[in-house]
Amino acid sequence: MRDKGIRTRERVLAGATEIFHRQGFSGTSIHDLIRETGVKKGNLYHFFRSKEEMGLEVLTRARDDFFTFLENSLQGDRPSDQLANHFESILRYHEGRNLLGGCIFGNTALEMSDRNETYRNVIHSVFVEWRRSIREVLETAIRSGEVRKDLDPEAMARHIVATVEGGILLARASRNPADLKECLAVLAGLFGIGGEATGRWGKQTG
Amino acid sequence: MRDKGIRTRERVLAGATEIFHRQGFSGTSIHDLIRETGVKKGNLYHFFRSKEEMGLEVLTRARDDFFTFLENSLQGDRPSDQLANHFESILRYHEGRNLLGGCIFGNTALEMSDRNETYRNVIHSVFVEWRRSIREVLETAIRSGEVRKDLDPEAMARHIVATVEGGILLARASRNPADLKECLAVLAGLFGIGGEATGRWGKQTG
Repeated sequence: MRDKGIRTRERVLAGATEIFHRQGFSGTSIHDLIRETGVKKGNLYHFFRSKEEMGLEVLTRARDDFFTFLENSLQGDRPSDQLANHFESILRYHEGRNLLGGCIFGNTALEMSDRNETYRNVIHSVFVEWRRSIREVLETAIRSGEVRKDLDPEAMARHIVATVEGGILLARASRNPADLKECLAVLAGLFGIGGEATGRWGKQTG
Repeated sequence: MRDKGIRTRERVLAGATEIFHRQGFSGTSIHDLIRETGVKKGNLYHFFRSKEEMGLEVLTRARDDFFTFLENSLQGDRPSDQLANHFESILRYHEGRNLLGGCIFGNTALEMSDRNETYRNVIHSVFVEWRRSIREVLETAIRSGEVRKDLDPEAMARHIVATVEGGILLARASRNPADLKECLAVLAGLFGIGGEATGRWGKQTG
């Protein structure tokens, strides 16, 4: 019985994650959650005291998954390969979903930052860690001479994260993944990233 | 009486604009609109058939206001002054609101793109026009030799809009306007914009 409870709870969380991702927190009703998860209202409240509590677990799990994604995508021999693979993985993820829902952290940052300090702190911690990981790669690239020494790795890491989030936003508004792809190409161009992994991005500007 | 009706309608729209901006469309209830505008439910439905119809008028008016902002902020003798003034105006706007609500177009792009094609089209038209205006400035800058000839004005205009939207997003998640300010400084650095208007941005990287 306990195992069954755990499995049901996981199923609720998986459904809630997908629907929060697509519709946002305010745009998701208890009725939507019941329909998406196939679990009765009483059961939902057995596992989570409120929609807010459920949302917090969805966000913290999404954060943990993203940290795994960060580690797995920032792979490669040289720092430039690591960045190129990271960009490529981001593009593949959003193309794979046909842009549906975009980035759950970006969505929640814009939807909830003024209204829920707990959610805002989780989102902020995602961006802090994302920036820190990229800054480390850039610092290594500067030390090895792969990237110009006059670049400020902290400012550039922030710039990369901002441009990726903005590129996702533009692509969703235009319903055209090229808007994200081209933003990633410009970022790649800024750091002189070439080679196989970014070859598909075509013209690199900047 | 007709004048009074028009004034009331304007008051409803002003209140609705502020609350949609801060809370999003899904996060705003009819009850919120009644409280914010001080108008009775029957009166709201006298002026607008639905929350969706009201939201559409809010968005199209916000778009018209933004086009005026674009024209007024892209001012200056040289293209680089025009861009610098544009960035400065964006920063002043968001600092003046203490980042509250961020950018209504960015918010709505992430909240509604998958769910309301009419809203998405209005938002998309905002980004298209914003990019077009900046591209024109960059084309002039390239012709006059102010900006490197190898820059692709179309790609760079997209990059600027994406980075501004992403910078606003990061600043809201961190509750720190510096995240937007520093993104604008990096953009300014990319185009070698210096001088008085951008002096306050400090170190320019890129």
